[in-house]
Amino acid sequence: MIIKSVKMFIKEERIDAFIEATIENQKNSIKEHGVIRFDVLQCKDDPSSFMFYEVYKNEEAVDEHTKTKHFNIWNDEVTPWFAKPRDRILYSAIVPDESDF
Amino acid sequence: MIIKSVKMFIKEERIDAFIEATIENQKNSIKEHGVIRFDVLQCKDDPSSFMFYEVYKNEEAVDEHTKTKHFNIWNDEVTPWFAKPRDRILYSAIVPDESDF
Repeated sequence: MIIKSVKMFIKEERIDAFIEATIENQKNSIKEHGVIRFDVLQCKDDPSSFMFYEVYKNEEAVDEHTKTKHFNIWNDEVTPWFAKPRDRILYSAIVPDESDF
Repeated sequence: MIIKSVKMFIKEERIDAFIEATIENQKNSIKEHGVIRFDVLQCKDDPSSFMFYEVYKNEEAVDEHTKTKHFNIWNDEVTPWFAKPRDRILYSAIVPDESDF
């Protein structure tokens, strides 16, 4: 299991469009065989700041996700809306066990 | 529902002790009535970097957690082990719904 957190800052005038495109991406991503969770979060103190909490079965599933049609449609659409480059970090889970994800 | 991400950087010589104390804290935290998830993650590229992904039913549950005995025992023990101040951010979930957390 591998967890990817992605932090993104979106240009203010694109926040609504970003949310719309991201809901569509999440709906498809969560159906991927190797995707366990795909949580989309918005910062309470700064509505232009978002975090994705993506839980994958393994590293192959992380790679597979970036090759999907829905990811690439989303990525091409939203990348110009980023106020600065996104910040991705990969984690291992200490607790809980995989069965609780 | 409210989500708290907490990023912590731990002094190298305290990493093992931090993990041990944190597993104990997580075991008790996840039993709290208002705690939905309490994921403890370690960065793959930097073993001194950790993230907690804490999902609460509401803001009262966030406050309640910081008043528990287990949180305060953990907090008093590990705070001297931080290499720099922890970074806490509060989020709302856009997707999925609460039932999927």
